[in-house]
Amino acid sequence: MIFEQFFDKTSSTYTYLISSGKGREALIIDPVLEKTNEYLNLLKNLNLKLVKVIDTHIHADHVSGLAELNEKTDCVTVMGEKAQADIVSMYAKDNEKIKIENIELKTIYTPGHTDDSYSFLMGDRVFTGDTLLIKSTGRTDFQNGNPNDQYHSIFNRLLKLPDKTLVYPAHDYKGEKVSTIGEEKKLNPRLQVNSKEQYVTVMNNLKLAHPQLMDVAISANRKGLTLKEINNRNN
Amino acid sequence: MIFEQFFDKTSSTYTYLISSGKGREALIIDPVLEKTNEYLNLLKNLNLKLVKVIDTHIHADHVSGLAELNEKTDCVTVMGEKAQADIVSMYAKDNEKIKIENIELKTIYTPGHTDDSYSFLMGDRVFTGDTLLIKSTGRTDFQNGNPNDQYHSIFNRLLKLPDKTLVYPAHDYKGEKVSTIGEEKKLNPRLQVNSKEQYVTVMNNLKLAHPQLMDVAISANRKGLTLKEINNRNN
Repeated sequence: MIFEQFFDKTSSTYTYLISSGKGREALIIDPVLEKTNEYLNLLKNLNLKLVKVIDTHIHADHVSGLAELNEKTDCVTVMGEKAQADIVSMYAKDNEKIKIENIELKTIYTPGHTDDSYSFLMGDRVFTGDTLLIKSTGRTDFQNGNPNDQYHSIFNRLLKLPDKTLVYPAHDYKGEKVSTIGEEKKLNPRLQVNSKEQYVTVMNNLKLAHPQLMDVAISANRKGLTLKEINNRNN
Repeated sequence: MIFEQFFDKTSSTYTYLISSGKGREALIIDPVLEKTNEYLNLLKNLNLKLVKVIDTHIHADHVSGLAELNEKTDCVTVMGEKAQADIVSMYAKDNEKIKIENIELKTIYTPGHTDDSYSFLMGDRVFTGDTLLIKSTGRTDFQNGNPNDQYHSIFNRLLKLPDKTLVYPAHDYKGEKVSTIGEEKKLNPRLQVNSKEQYVTVMNNLKLAHPQLMDVAISANRKGLTLKEINNRNN
């Protein structure tokens, strides 16, 4: 299997490029607009064809590469059905299968960070977006975020996966690349709570500043802007 | 399978951490001394046990993490049999199998960059050290480097692998992460030569400056120094 993890320093975003290695079809999860040439270059180097691209949710901290990749490769753009984004051509339901050649992802609806947050399970690993981070969890204070929902998404969905399931999040701010469900159960400080109420209290008292790019990013990601369109806007 | 590619910005080195995902045993290729805590942290996060660590050759541009990882984890330290390094506990011959749980690498002796350069084939991918780089090849002007040998190593060994074999080198200076044998055959500018003589002429006329860390690195890597020993030396 081809499995490449890209890191965008500006937004600390992880992007994943996946292909079975047995065919030519490839999939990208959470692409960053400014990095799309890097992904396209790798696809070309490996003689792969991008057929699907997924955003785990409408991102508020970077502009998504969905529109640009769709324009350049004609790939199918995928998000969970609760997302409202003009660029999306395939809306996935909870528990729906998303397929490319020899690869299958199962959609898990995991609201909380936003109401359109989904995780994607692929065999031994799960892409958790901003729901479950390594030793942290995604903030729940905008975009219809809700700590009650997030508690349910994490404790009743993600932590029910086998302990050895690899956790690949959409961000990390300390250089961690991957974790496991078992490790997060044991050591994620936010998950060492005795009740949902305690989790909600913690999340409601984080007092974080809003992401710098928030207004630009959310609006661009709802519309689905390409590099050219973003540049035209900025000029 | 767990397959993590680390990048050290200072020396543009790629390090690989591999485990089958079916057992606890892990392997590291070309570790960088200053990054060893990062690898150990990931191993701990994933509940993996480092059992072998390989250097593709005696590096001249960074101090290897072999000694430090050996001290911290008691892992077996592996290099090809032509290498002369005090820290090595297992010398691999050409075509020898190096095994960890559910994973097998085949050693390919690929001298040229140095006379102790080896590549390691693992199923669909090959770790090429500094022998075959993405769109380049390793310099051949010190440490008994030899462009004739390198031509043979590349054309008669590495390029005989199936075209779709993934190429994971020990360095990249332009942000490329992976290539394929087919892609390198077609597009690597150094490989578009008509004869061995032409290749040798190109390599003998590169006129590159020596790596800054060369004297420190080669001597440290022959001895196998730990972080503590390097720090004592520098003080």
